[in-house]
Amino acid sequence: MTNASLWMKSEGPETDIVLSSRVRLARNLTDLPFPAQLGDRDGERLTARLKEAFDSLGAAWQLTYRPLSEISPIERQVLVEKHVVSPALIQEPVRFQGLVADPGESISIMVNEEDHLRTQIFLAGLQLTQAWHMANRLDDDLERSLNFAYDSEMGYLTACPTNVGTGLRASVMVHLPALVLTRQVQQLFHALAQIGVVVRGLYGEGTEVVGNLFQVSNQVSLGLTEEEFVHNLTVVAQEIVGRERHARQLLTQSHRLEVADRVGRAWGILTHARIISSDEALKLLSEVKLGQDLQFVKIPGHTTFSELALMTRPGYLMDRAGRELQSMERDELRATILREKLLATREDKEER
Amino acid sequence: MTNASLWMKSEGPETDIVLSSRVRLARNLTDLPFPAQLGDRDGERLTARLKEAFDSLGAAWQLTYRPLSEISPIERQVLVEKHVVSPALIQEPVRFQGLVADPGESISIMVNEEDHLRTQIFLAGLQLTQAWHMANRLDDDLERSLNFAYDSEMGYLTACPTNVGTGLRASVMVHLPALVLTRQVQQLFHALAQIGVVVRGLYGEGTEVVGNLFQVSNQVSLGLTEEEFVHNLTVVAQEIVGRERHARQLLTQSHRLEVADRVGRAWGILTHARIISSDEALKLLSEVKLGQDLQFVKIPGHTTFSELALMTRPGYLMDRAGRELQSMERDELRATILREKLLATREDKEER
Repeated sequence: MTNASLWMKSEGPETDIVLSSRVRLARNLTDLPFPAQLGDRDGERLTARLKEAFDSLGAAWQLTYRPLSEISPIERQVLVEKHVVSPALIQEPVRFQGLVADPGESISIMVNEEDHLRTQIFLAGLQLTQAWHMANRLDDDLERSLNFAYDSEMGYLTACPTNVGTGLRASVMVHLPALVLTRQVQQLFHALAQIGVVVRGLYGEGTEVVGNLFQVSNQVSLGLTEEEFVHNLTVVAQEIVGRERHARQLLTQSHRLEVADRVGRAWGILTHARIISSDEALKLLSEVKLGQDLQFVKIPGHTTFSELALMTRPGYLMDRAGRELQSMERDELRATILREKLLATREDKEER
Repeated sequence: MTNASLWMKSEGPETDIVLSSRVRLARNLTDLPFPAQLGDRDGERLTARLKEAFDSLGAAWQLTYRPLSEISPIERQVLVEKHVVSPALIQEPVRFQGLVADPGESISIMVNEEDHLRTQIFLAGLQLTQAWHMANRLDDDLERSLNFAYDSEMGYLTACPTNVGTGLRASVMVHLPALVLTRQVQQLFHALAQIGVVVRGLYGEGTEVVGNLFQVSNQVSLGLTEEEFVHNLTVVAQEIVGRERHARQLLTQSHRLEVADRVGRAWGILTHARIISSDEALKLLSEVKLGQDLQFVKIPGHTTFSELALMTRPGYLMDRAGRELQSMERDELRATILREKLLATREDKEER
């Protein structure tokens, strides 16, 4: 059974609002077509070269390469739910796609998604600079054995023009229940769009916003250095954190009872429902997390919101059951797991 | 502070479905105008005569007469919520209205509602015959000192033609969550209408149905003897009980998980909400009662559903607080009382 990624269990700066930081670098080899145009012979040549490069990285990085074809459909789905890979990577037909990851899944390299390599670093909380430093070191180490397509004017060349330049995308996953409740979120996102920052749902481009979770990232990769991009997004994230904290303060001052009611009801339903959909679960967990952050409730043990959120996802549930599950079976198993986790200890049970 | 009526705490036949039985007799004195036409002098004469009659009933009935003008507006509202008096009795302006009741509130006589006297007997469960026998004995005792308007052809004369004849209305308050859930209730009520049986909401004519509670009564008072009316409605009530039981059996066989989920959620919200409206509370209590009847949950102590339902009513809450309360204050107090009552003992708390 797949477990939560190690970084999900860690604490980090501002983890009450910034669940995770991610830095991703898009890279392509000089003399081979982009994945979409990759023929069988070139695909095999690419795979062989990459394997050699990963092997040459040595024990320090603790990375393992797995062809996607050797990963079961259920595990592929769990990898998406953990954000280790993108939904695009696992789309059929699977040809030369693969995944390189460390045991804690802080590092993942998607092979042959839109680009030959997409190196990603995940850290808990607001740690974009740290993530960038790790990504940069790994990129340097890979470049020792691989020739990346690079143009002195344009920078790194990528399959999609929006990634040309640094090939970098930095993003943070933020939890903004108070800005949503006080209806300030649309105005904020509109302002961010003006400065080239995009806001998306839980699983990136085109996915729905659920559980007050937003992925905030830089829109283009060109025109600034990597350090500037990372610094800018860090400043944006700090600004968002400040506004969310301010909204929470207002809420607890002027609507304390209403917030306690929302949190109480969410807790009551999560600990007593027998059937629950993934969207409802995430929505209620978001309110429980707000309650925990405001010290109205306490999630027992050391289970983080990121872990609980993952546990509500369909792939995770099927992986846990060890088989495909119908929607209704998942809804029942989800309710059971949530009850178990939230009522883990008698003492914590009614603490509020 | 007003308490629940004693009969609400009692058990009776079929109390899982029939909360209470009520028999009511409408009577008017021969030589005085109906309440709507009652002038000041006649009103005073009527009051004097009635007082004398109530006094002559003696200690056996344990009845006390109170002019409505001496009952506070909040207590009047509580009396309506307990069904001791009708909403019509407490409508302003108050002139010669009054209430006669025993300490347990199984007996209540409304003075100058639509008729001079409306004698009501309440019993827990399905006990229409027993209620009728009590009402009849009390009526006989009253008739020793009062001359009731009676026509040998028409029977007892009343202000509204629908009550002419026996002056009797028998009703049962039934809780039909399974017939509502399985959408059989409309068809059943339509069939009952064909045989002269009417179904109304919680507080009789023109009131909304809430909490799956229905008042079932005979439509006319003419053409049959009292015993026949009472017998017929008893048969109807037994038929309704049989259908509700059948629907509950079907639900637990084919939708056990869904029912457990509804009951669990209702319990979870009632025991964790901080703000709750009276309608939502009654709706959720109805689901908890179904859960208790099906042995999915246990309401702690010996608090009956009738008592809990009463505790959610606005008048009861204001009476308990000892002052008028704004809607929001009531919603908060209601949530607090429900949590206290449902979480009365640690042991029972999570029993399901």
